Amino acid sequence: MLDTEAALARALERAGLAVPGSGAAVTAVARAEFVDMGELGRQAALTGNPVPALVRVLTGLLPPGPAGAADAVHRGATSQDIIDTAAMLVSRRALGAIIADLSRAADRAAELAAEHARTVLAGRTLLQQAVPVTFGLVAAGWLTAIDDAIAGLRRVNDRRLAVQYGGAAGTLASLGAAGPGVAALLAEELGLALPVLPWHTDRLRIIELAAALAGASAVLGKLARDVTLLAQTEVAEVSEGDGAPGRGGSSAMPHKHNPVAAICILGCVKRAPGLLATLTAAAEQEHQRAAGAWHAEWGTLSDLISLTGSAANWAAELLGGLHVDAARMRANLEQSAGLPLAENVAAVLSQALGRLAAHDLVADASRRAAAHGIDLGHALFDDPATAASLAEAGIGRDQISAALDPASYLGATPDLIRRALTAHTHPTPALSDRA
Amino acid sequence: MLDTEAALARALERAGLAVPGSGAAVTAVARAEFVDMGELGRQAALTGNPVPALVRVLTGLLPPGPAGAADAVHRGATSQDIIDTAAMLVSRRALGAIIADLSRAADRAAELAAEHARTVLAGRTLLQQAVPVTFGLVAAGWLTAIDDAIAGLRRVNDRRLAVQYGGAAGTLASLGAAGPGVAALLAEELGLALPVLPWHTDRLRIIELAAALAGASAVLGKLARDVTLLAQTEVAEVSEGDGAPGRGGSSAMPHKHNPVAAICILGCVKRAPGLLATLTAAAEQEHQRAAGAWHAEWGTLSDLISLTGSAANWAAELLGGLHVDAARMRANLEQSAGLPLAENVAAVLSQALGRLAAHDLVADASRRAAAHGIDLGHALFDDPATAASLAEAGIGRDQISAALDPASYLGATPDLIRRALTAHTHPTPALSDRA
Amino acid sequence: MLDTEAALARALERAGLAVPGSGAAVTAVARAEFVDMGELGRQAALTGNPVPALVRVLTGLLPPGPAGAADAVHRGATSQDIIDTAAMLVSRRALGAIIADLSRAADRAAELAAEHARTVLAGRTLLQQAVPVTFGLVAAGWLTAIDDAIAGLRRVNDRRLAVQYGGAAGTLASLGAAGPGVAALLAEELGLALPVLPWHTDRLRIIELAAALAGASAVLGKLARDVTLLAQTEVAEVSEGDGAPGRGGSSAMPHKHNPVAAICILGCVKRAPGLLATLTAAAEQEHQRAAGAWHAEWGTLSDLISLTGSAANWAAELLGGLHVDAARMRANLEQSAGLPLAENVAAVLSQALGRLAAHDLVADASRRAAAHGIDLGHALFDDPATAASLAEAGIGRDQISAALDPASYLGATPDLIRRALTAHTHPTPALSDRA
Amino acid sequence: MLDTEAALARALERAGLAVPGSGAAVTAVARAEFVDMGELGRQAALTGNPVPALVRVLTGLLPPGPAGAADAVHRGATSQDIIDTAAMLVSRRALGAIIADLSRAADRAAELAAEHARTVLAGRTLLQQAVPVTFGLVAAGWLTAIDDAIAGLRRVNDRRLAVQYGGAAGTLASLGAAGPGVAALLAEELGLALPVLPWHTDRLRIIELAAALAGASAVLGKLARDVTLLAQTEVAEVSEGDGAPGRGGSSAMPHKHNPVAAICILGCVKRAPGLLATLTAAAEQEHQRAAGAWHAEWGTLSDLISLTGSAANWAAELLGGLHVDAARMRANLEQSAGLPLAENVAAVLSQALGRLAAHDLVADASRRAAAHGIDLGHALFDDPATAASLAEAGIGRDQISAALDPASYLGATPDLIRRALTAHTHPTPALSDRA
Repeated sequence: MLDTEAALARALERAGLAVPGSGAAVTAVARAEFVDMGELGRQAALTGNPVPALVRVLTGLLPPGPAGAADAVHRGATSQDIIDTAAMLVSRRALGAIIADLSRAADRAAELAAEHARTVLAGRTLLQQAVPVTFGLVAAGWLTAIDDAIAGLRRVNDRRLAVQYGGAAGTLASLGAAGPGVAALLAEELGLALPVLPWHTDRLRIIELAAALAGASAVLGKLARDVTLLAQTEVAEVSEGDGAPGRGGSSAMPHKHNPVAAICILGCVKRAPGLLATLTAAAEQEHQRAAGAWHAEWGTLSDLISLTGSAANWAAELLGGLHVDAARMRANLEQSAGLPLAENVAAVLSQALGRLAAHDLVADASRRAAAHGIDLGHALFDDPATAASLAEAGIGRDQISAALDPASYLGATPDLIRRALTAHTHPTPALSDRA
Repeated sequence: MLDTEAALARALERAGLAVPGSGAAVTAVARAEFVDMGELGRQAALTGNPVPALVRVLTGLLPPGPAGAADAVHRGATSQDIIDTAAMLVSRRALGAIIADLSRAADRAAELAAEHARTVLAGRTLLQQAVPVTFGLVAAGWLTAIDDAIAGLRRVNDRRLAVQYGGAAGTLASLGAAGPGVAALLAEELGLALPVLPWHTDRLRIIELAAALAGASAVLGKLARDVTLLAQTEVAEVSEGDGAPGRGGSSAMPHKHNPVAAICILGCVKRAPGLLATLTAAAEQEHQRAAGAWHAEWGTLSDLISLTGSAANWAAELLGGLHVDAARMRANLEQSAGLPLAENVAAVLSQALGRLAAHDLVADASRRAAAHGIDLGHALFDDPATAASLAEAGIGRDQISAALDPASYLGATPDLIRRALTAHTHPTPALSDRA
Repeated sequence: MLDTEAALARALERAGLAVPGSGAAVTAVARAEFVDMGELGRQAALTGNPVPALVRVLTGLLPPGPAGAADAVHRGATSQDIIDTAAMLVSRRALGAIIADLSRAADRAAELAAEHARTVLAGRTLLQQAVPVTFGLVAAGWLTAIDDAIAGLRRVNDRRLAVQYGGAAGTLASLGAAGPGVAALLAEELGLALPVLPWHTDRLRIIELAAALAGASAVLGKLARDVTLLAQTEVAEVSEGDGAPGRGGSSAMPHKHNPVAAICILGCVKRAPGLLATLTAAAEQEHQRAAGAWHAEWGTLSDLISLTGSAANWAAELLGGLHVDAARMRANLEQSAGLPLAENVAAVLSQALGRLAAHDLVADASRRAAAHGIDLGHALFDDPATAASLAEAGIGRDQISAALDPASYLGATPDLIRRALTAHTHPTPALSDRA
Repeated sequence: MLDTEAALARALERAGLAVPGSGAAVTAVARAEFVDMGELGRQAALTGNPVPALVRVLTGLLPPGPAGAADAVHRGATSQDIIDTAAMLVSRRALGAIIADLSRAADRAAELAAEHARTVLAGRTLLQQAVPVTFGLVAAGWLTAIDDAIAGLRRVNDRRLAVQYGGAAGTLASLGAAGPGVAALLAEELGLALPVLPWHTDRLRIIELAAALAGASAVLGKLARDVTLLAQTEVAEVSEGDGAPGRGGSSAMPHKHNPVAAICILGCVKRAPGLLATLTAAAEQEHQRAAGAWHAEWGTLSDLISLTGSAANWAAELLGGLHVDAARMRANLEQSAGLPLAENVAAVLSQALGRLAAHDLVADASRRAAAHGIDLGHALFDDPATAASLAEAGIGRDQISAALDPASYLGATPDLIRRALTAHTHPTPALSDRA
């Protein structure tokens, strides 16, 4: 708010509406240490916002009178101009930090995608093992999502953070015809976009900002959910590194290594949807200034910004130190005894037996394998009738073994990882549908 | 879903993975009238989604065997591919209709902005009369918001509606190396974007779609809230036209003319924030297919689409028939007896008396005016001391009357309306911060 | 949290599981001033919650060894036990304050209901004037809602704030068979209910607490919305009193008297639904301790409590100083020129003319009255044909005038106000459906 | 709505305000098959709700005139009276079904709790194995939560489903002094509570109803989340029974057995928080009838009811057929090689070695065990120094083995299961904090 008032004084001076030196004078006193925050809070309760009291503080620090800089303080502005513009400045500062953390996370996800391009693990659908994927593809999925979230935040940062300067009812009446010129200079001083109109009760840009933040949160929530699941004792395919000594430990249970970063991310991002809903609902604002809905935005937007920021910071740390246990990944997949690859085996058989017969034969073998806890390959060859069919069709154990190798059934995986990495380093419309 | 399966068969045929004629054959039978919806629902409860049963219906309608088109049905796909792609197709169709209705609404708002550029009414902040605005500026505010909402929907429509085709775990394993090629052809067949990766559990695009819809809803909610407030019996500055005989009437109270369109808009859009929150929270999806969170999206997205669509349609109708009572607008403003213009009067006086003295003198007069129910002009001249001050300063009744004319205190209003109209007809980055 | 640890030490001592004096010793050091909050925060980031570090602080302040009180610190407990129980203690303290503020608000609403039992104003449906009500009935509506909200908060306060004490996985394993006894003593020490089971991942009571808070918020939101509408410049039927000099004023517009309390209430309560949604969604908690969902509760519940508390405090102040302008209420109603009473006039006429004829005759007159801006009474008698019908039916101007008196058409109003007041002072199941 | 209109006619007749036979006559024609639903929808768009058109249908089916039953149709009522009362009737019917399904689920959870009281499995906190619990205790947790959810629904059902009958502005003006009597008879006819006041814009009971539904949903979501986690391929401790042939299967992956019921529950209940938020936000209703907020309730409440009902039905089915694999539970726990029981081992050692020394010794051994993939017992005795300490302290392998038996470290588990079962069969305030 102080930065906004200072920039306004400079803009007024540049527009010839304040005496020379006003800008510098207001800028010099617009410092947080000159403001008694407790008193500001008490005064805010009288008017419903802190700006009038802040303006009194500023003018009190300046020489009064028509030739004084005090005259330049808050000129043409209404309280909402100062608070809304301040919210944009805070958002810009926060978006910078969030995008930086997300970029670190994305870069690390890209490294994981490349490094583990061939590290096979079970794909899991509905929390059941399905056909294999690679951990590189999992990381590529995180990467693409983070990259898209960054693109969304950048779009809002570059195009939708706009100055607010409209005066009491959005007409800048007290400045006569000079208002739009001052607004443009104010936007320039602050490096914010100049909107088509003052947006006192057009809150779409707040919703877009909130949606981009909540979208980034959601992407991190998916990543953190995956990590907590992969880090389960019974899965143990990844674990969080020790960001600091003692991190994630439990004194009562020394073996425990809790995925603290993933948990903290989830603890943050689960709060985002409700905050986004509040900001969206609050956009129903009356006439030229809302009675309550605007006020409901303040703390909500702050919370959404800091929760998303915390999650992004944790995510960069999490990915920076993630341990990947490739052996355990393969071992877990082998527990399923070839069953996730039934589809691949059937494909091999169908060339000789026809699609339907192949499917039925493999389905029967799968059922026997699951029931008796044996490998699908054994289930096929242990059954005399099936073994005879296979022999007749000229299909040997080698072919079946090959079909049961997870690495043989990864389809487009390498290609997809490549696409994600290319989109990360060279985002182009051709490769990506992102804005 | 049927359109997706049909397009997939055509894509497979083009890729040489299905016998010639498969695409046309599947397309011919992929028709809703061939599907028993009740039975489909019953089957869906067994597998948790309707696609397996739908695939059985389709294959049942086609010649079987390796040379038959049945082989092309659903090849390489998983249920989620079909449902997600279908959701994109439904969204595209709906966005077309919603954007068309919003464009009608925006065009009408532009007409109102131009027509009522000088129709003065009270600006209202915190539901109290403030300095005057014009109804053209109010309409320009609605216009800019709708235009920005359209831009947001267009961006999603053009760049984020993407085909889903990844197979069981997103690797398109059953197609070997041919998968990406089929995916690209499928995108082409359907006119959807090709994503970097299958997005089974990367739901950012769903959040972006939902946020654009909820943003459009929010913009309409602000508009409808304004209309209900301006249409209040005690305000009566606008009323809804009769879209149809009997619209908005009440048999018990024949005088009532309820703003039915505005009420219906609010009834729709108040549901959007909760639905947006649900879709955002649902993005925390496990591994390669979510156990429940994905399923929670289905009805929620449908509801959000149809509620936003209803609101947009009502808005176009509302603005198309809005009656504006300029005389009542001016009369309501005059009820405030010049008090909203105290700032303007003080500005006039400050040239002669100095800013502080002018402010105090007007503030005193305003208090007297409010207490005795008289006009601010009278309050100034009826007080002998004040009258003397004014006379001494050479300020006559004419100057005060001029300062009390609302039309004299509209500041940047004409300029702002012009900006909004220009941005509507020639959207350029120079004028607008919109994406 | 300190109170919980202290009570636990006392409970353990009473159960014979800690050396005599342990309870007092831990209680003596369990003081906030002994804790370095910054350091606690830093440590919390290592384990994902602040309790381990807090326990270290406490034990560090106590004599160690088997004969020392340090042995009694945190015994049998897990971090969640301390945080959840602390949340219950904070909630109880807050509920006390909130219920007290709501009770003050209710008492004042009851006074307004009694005082203004016959103060006629326009009923307003869909923001249009409808048949008359009295301001006493409006206040009675607020009263009943606040009373019901208090009942809901009391129910949660009395029955659902329960101690949490289950140890690492809810079995109190480290205490052997002694656990339930200690839990009961801990509940007694803290004055909290003893739950059937530890509720580490059964968060229904959190939802019930949150719903009662959000319900109270919602009731206050309705009240504040009414006040902002009744306080509109064009309605001006109520205004907020000056809680403090300068409250609600605007320096630029000295006539303005913003309903600051109502606005602040709305600014608070509009945030409740999103917070309630977050807490409800967070109840999906895994196994014996949730990875993230529990953590998402912390700040959310705090915010919901403090926002509801602020709103309740503002509401007590608002109702305590509300100015009611009975003359303006009647004047606004008279603006409708009798039209809201058309139903009553028709009822009078129907005795002589039959229901249908009466209805049509009044409907025609209403339309004429609305079109020409005249009173319904005049519209009836100015039309020769209608006047003749009325004369023939023996209906005179007096009867019509009586029917047009709002005070004659209040139906059950006095009875309803009486019911609300009785329910407020003597809540009984006979009068009320409240729990 | 038809039931409400019929009951109103009967109430009016009983009050002497309608000709004898009116009640029966209206009841006879108040049947859905007499209403053209499409036409009703079209008419509803004119007035903003379907009631006026419905009233026209009813009166058209009845003899007109003062001696006819048509006169009793809708008398004294406003549209909202009919819709709100109908919502209460629908809610009551739905609550009956939901409570029945939840009761079936609770009974089955109680059976599981009893049956598996000693079936040991790993407690899991933050998705990591912690100290052991029993599956009976897990089921007891589900049981208690469902029982509490039922209690919450019952409370709303018994005390908060109230008739709505207030006329145009809540005064029942058109009935003079007779209104409250008719309201009481109408409540009696419908078996609904009589509220203190008409509750047109006091929506707390809607919030309470919604919160009870969302609370029940949340409880089922926790249960379903547990089932999906326990059913993971790598955990495999429970699986869903086959409700029907083909349920949960996958044609491509014959081994898969998806937990369809749990997934469908999650798909339903994840939608509840957003709907609850919408209903809570919608309680900000203006004056005597809301312009939009009321309308937003309709579809939202319907959705919340049907989603909760679906989830309850699925839950009863899920628990009815849940397969529990006790051997796998023990095997998974044994994978942790005694580490979750370190706390118990330390407790045994502390008697001989002192608490601190015991803790350090076990912590060291745990670290070695985890690092080398050996059992905690071996880690203790394989290390010569530790073995010597143990020998010196007279602690043998038997004692350590006993301490490593999960069944020896269940603490209050049997007692807690007993409490949950008792509370289920004999709910008393003594045992439970539930309302």
